Amino acid sequence: MEEERTISWDEQAGCVILIDQTLLPETFRIISCHHVLSLVEAIQRLAVRGAPALGVAGGYGVALAAHSTHVASFDRFRREVLHLADIVRNARPTAVNLAWGVDRVLRAIENAVSVEEIQNLALAEANRIADEDISSCRQIGEIGAALLPEQCTVLTHCNAGALACTAWGTALGIVRTAVQHGKEVNVIACETRPLLQGARLTAWELSRDGIDVRVITDSSAAFLMRLGKVDCVLVGADRITRDVVFNKIGTYMHAVCARHHAIPFYVAAPMSTFDLIHTEPDICIEERTREELSVCGDRMMVPGKAGVLNYAFDATPLMLIDSVVTEQGILTPPFTSVFRASGKDT
Amino acid sequence: MEEERTISWDEQAGCVILIDQTLLPETFRIISCHHVLSLVEAIQRLAVRGAPALGVAGGYGVALAAHSTHVASFDRFRREVLHLADIVRNARPTAVNLAWGVDRVLRAIENAVSVEEIQNLALAEANRIADEDISSCRQIGEIGAALLPEQCTVLTHCNAGALACTAWGTALGIVRTAVQHGKEVNVIACETRPLLQGARLTAWELSRDGIDVRVITDSSAAFLMRLGKVDCVLVGADRITRDVVFNKIGTYMHAVCARHHAIPFYVAAPMSTFDLIHTEPDICIEERTREELSVCGDRMMVPGKAGVLNYAFDATPLMLIDSVVTEQGILTPPFTSVFRASGKDT
Repeated sequence: MEEERTISWDEQAGCVILIDQTLLPETFRIISCHHVLSLVEAIQRLAVRGAPALGVAGGYGVALAAHSTHVASFDRFRREVLHLADIVRNARPTAVNLAWGVDRVLRAIENAVSVEEIQNLALAEANRIADEDISSCRQIGEIGAALLPEQCTVLTHCNAGALACTAWGTALGIVRTAVQHGKEVNVIACETRPLLQGARLTAWELSRDGIDVRVITDSSAAFLMRLGKVDCVLVGADRITRDVVFNKIGTYMHAVCARHHAIPFYVAAPMSTFDLIHTEPDICIEERTREELSVCGDRMMVPGKAGVLNYAFDATPLMLIDSVVTEQGILTPPFTSVFRASGKDT
Repeated sequence: MEEERTISWDEQAGCVILIDQTLLPETFRIISCHHVLSLVEAIQRLAVRGAPALGVAGGYGVALAAHSTHVASFDRFRREVLHLADIVRNARPTAVNLAWGVDRVLRAIENAVSVEEIQNLALAEANRIADEDISSCRQIGEIGAALLPEQCTVLTHCNAGALACTAWGTALGIVRTAVQHGKEVNVIACETRPLLQGARLTAWELSRDGIDVRVITDSSAAFLMRLGKVDCVLVGADRITRDVVFNKIGTYMHAVCARHHAIPFYVAAPMSTFDLIHTEPDICIEERTREELSVCGDRMMVPGKAGVLNYAFDATPLMLIDSVVTEQGILTPPFTSVFRASGKDT
């Protein structure tokens, strides 16, 4: 998978290209974003999603702003790039990596004095974020693989795989590395309603790699734990604050049920997922449209007079998490070392 | 709702008629079953479902066998009715009420000596089961309504409503009665993958009655509990043995999470749902087709090479259940009185 990137820069065309994840598993299609607003639209309709991939998208978003803006003066160019960067930063609210990627590239171009310099520095930094994401996933894979028994069944939720990153994956990167090391790992993929990233994406990328994967309804997970069919839970993260892990809705349910059954619960995420500043009440949990729940193919599944509540993410208190696997090592809540290094009290 | 029955006998046509629940909420259609095999097909494709409604379907199944069998001798008639009754009994394995309804009508015709007597006794007993089901639901409603606070949000799973019974409902019967008594009850309906009985049926029947209902993904329930948005969980049951409650997959997850949040967890079910003989390992949990998960409208959501696990029910240990509301009163696990009355040790 390493050579096939979820999102990258097309040198010839001078644009961002990405796998349209809304069409999988039926159709594999690469789409091109020539303008920032088309990238933002791709982010909002989840053509590209997953916290690490959003970090890369944030970086390329600024590069794209620099490459697609054509105005007369450098000052106006600079203002327009910053304006577009703001739009990218706010495309989705919950995953911290998007803003992190934008801000990292903005810092790289801070002192640039020409349009060309901004274009070159922005693209170089965005490419660096993408390359580092791959190497982070490889390191997370190596470090996390040690946590998995020689033979095991891993339950995962949503997609924290190659498609959620530039390549390889965080949670699924751990599975891939463990399999490479000869461990017999099979995966139970929760389908992940409403948009079925588990059924559509996790099952697609693992089965393509020849890794044994079975899809279940999200509500089956606890019962499979009770039946002794789950050895550990392994998920990604959209934002880790000093009190909770934000991740796809359903993560909290799995954490509660894993604790009830004394099953280890692991989070895999690059350091860019840590938010050293905020706590749970500061963070907006994105609510998405009624249609994600109410429409199923060509059928209307929720009657018009009934309401819908559609939170895209939930928050899991750190006390329910056994370990967070990062590219810098395995962290154990409450992550005192991370927050101390940031200069904030914990 | 009381006059509109989910399933009943059509006197003119001499057949069973029922609401085709697979078409709701888009289409309300009554279908007629003139032969036992078409009733069995309706049961298996879930045109009629829900434990109490299956009890009634079992009863009417035997009545339909008696009314649609035309053979020369009484002995052959009797044998054919018993044979068809067996087919009805085995149409689905998990809900005990189906076999209970079949067997109750078989007992009623045990000593009959003519075709006409069997036909009359079978139909009378099946109608009695249906009438008793309505009055049981009304009693469950009255008894259970007392458990609900004056203002509350009830979380429910699947459909334990009028559509799961002859009318009124068990869990939703409690909600209806509480609302009739002036309580301000609103309902969070878990959509209930894969077949979405919560989104399609619970939301349909409650919103039709003007009761406030919001649909969520099943995996949102635990997080809403954590946010303090759920006052109690109220579900039906497919079979209650001396150790567990079998109910729609997902029930166990809600029970674990409710206990984690110290939220009361109530089951509403008629006494016919108790299985005084078996324990968990004796009972087959129905596994249903791959297509229920993998197909969504006209889209394929699970890639062909990935497996699927599709249990239709799970089992919740009695220790996680606060009360079972029956037509005879509120029972508290371990139900010593019920099992003592049955003459079995507990």
